[in-house]
Amino acid sequence: MTKKEFDRIEAYMLTQMQDAAHDRHHVYRVLNAALDIAGHVDGADMDVLTAACLLHDIGREAQAANLELCHAQIGGEMAFDFLVSQGWAAPKAQHVRECITSHRYRGDNQPQSMEAKILFDADKLEVTGAIGIARTLIYAGQVGEPLYILGDDGDVVLDGGGAEITSFFQEYNWKLKKVYDAFYTERAKEIARGRQKASMDFYDGLLAEVRENYKHAASRLIK
Amino acid sequence: MTKKEFDRIEAYMLTQMQDAAHDRHHVYRVLNAALDIAGHVDGADMDVLTAACLLHDIGREAQAANLELCHAQIGGEMAFDFLVSQGWAAPKAQHVRECITSHRYRGDNQPQSMEAKILFDADKLEVTGAIGIARTLIYAGQVGEPLYILGDDGDVVLDGGGAEITSFFQEYNWKLKKVYDAFYTERAKEIARGRQKASMDFYDGLLAEVRENYKHAASRLIK
Repeated sequence: MTKKEFDRIEAYMLTQMQDAAHDRHHVYRVLNAALDIAGHVDGADMDVLTAACLLHDIGREAQAANLELCHAQIGGEMAFDFLVSQGWAAPKAQHVRECITSHRYRGDNQPQSMEAKILFDADKLEVTGAIGIARTLIYAGQVGEPLYILGDDGDVVLDGGGAEITSFFQEYNWKLKKVYDAFYTERAKEIARGRQKASMDFYDGLLAEVRENYKHAASRLIK
Repeated sequence: MTKKEFDRIEAYMLTQMQDAAHDRHHVYRVLNAALDIAGHVDGADMDVLTAACLLHDIGREAQAANLELCHAQIGGEMAFDFLVSQGWAAPKAQHVRECITSHRYRGDNQPQSMEAKILFDADKLEVTGAIGIARTLIYAGQVGEPLYILGDDGDVVLDGGGAEITSFFQEYNWKLKKVYDAFYTERAKEIARGRQKASMDFYDGLLAEVRENYKHAASRLIK
């Protein structure tokens, strides 16, 4: 891909992304990780992969405005239309669309092509390790989600493993902790394994800190 | 303090605090930590300490609306007026005011009384360890602050030690990393030391992850 073409696709991405949780730094990290993974496999189409990475989250705003919509589905359609408008052949733009529609962790649509698997893995690496913790906490700040919830007596910090109310601890248990089994490529598995301890240690440490703190909960000391 | 009096002060605090970064869970953790610390010193006035903890951040909204104001100064005045309105003797309400006006990390006003030092330490413990990381990231999400900034070439993640643009990495270097020298009480120093590694490990791990990721930055691979 020429620099000029990269810049055009990047410029379109930036006009579509105002959401800070899935901001442009996330997009660049996904692209960087995809280039890393692609260096460990044979014959990935770098034009398709680069465009798919740059454009994979452009459907986020439409989803935020209407939660019944799927950002992967809409983003894929937007990317297809944009790339065709830029002169891409329909089959190649369609390949990018398929990468984007299958990149979602919680979706039923599984990635089929090598490029789709690389995008999926690169995006899922963003849920691993310290970066996964950081992004989840930033998101909690954006939407006003609590770190944890207390049990009915108000003195015990729940670990999030069974809580029905959304919290950072719940998100850790239901997503961050489980993502390590979800990768397709060996290189992504290797990167993820190297990051796993940082994520576990942070959760374990935070839980221990707040539980220790709540041993001294005020309610036990009031007359 | 009776439960009824605690509930009245707590209810007033809740009406004054809508800011999620310094939300009520922070207030309860500060109170819990203060009760822990108070159990290791002789003769702390528990009524003064409890009221000061509950009300220490009620000036945040006024400060948010006018950044020239200091939430510790205003919060102290609000607490004094409220407690006097509740029948507290002026000297005792004044003691609470002094605790609150001197609780700020970046303030010139240093805590003098034992209760003021305990509030200061309990509040500063919230900047230590995994909880300090978590709260700083949640704040970054609320105000749209980036995790890091890139150097001029766009390919190197700056560590925040000298960066002039606000970021999580900068906040770590300028505040989170340095707070461990700031405590007055031995118990708070002990708690802080126990948490320090979690904070350092998270920062080191996150920096390593994103720097490794940017080794594959796209700009190097574009023709």
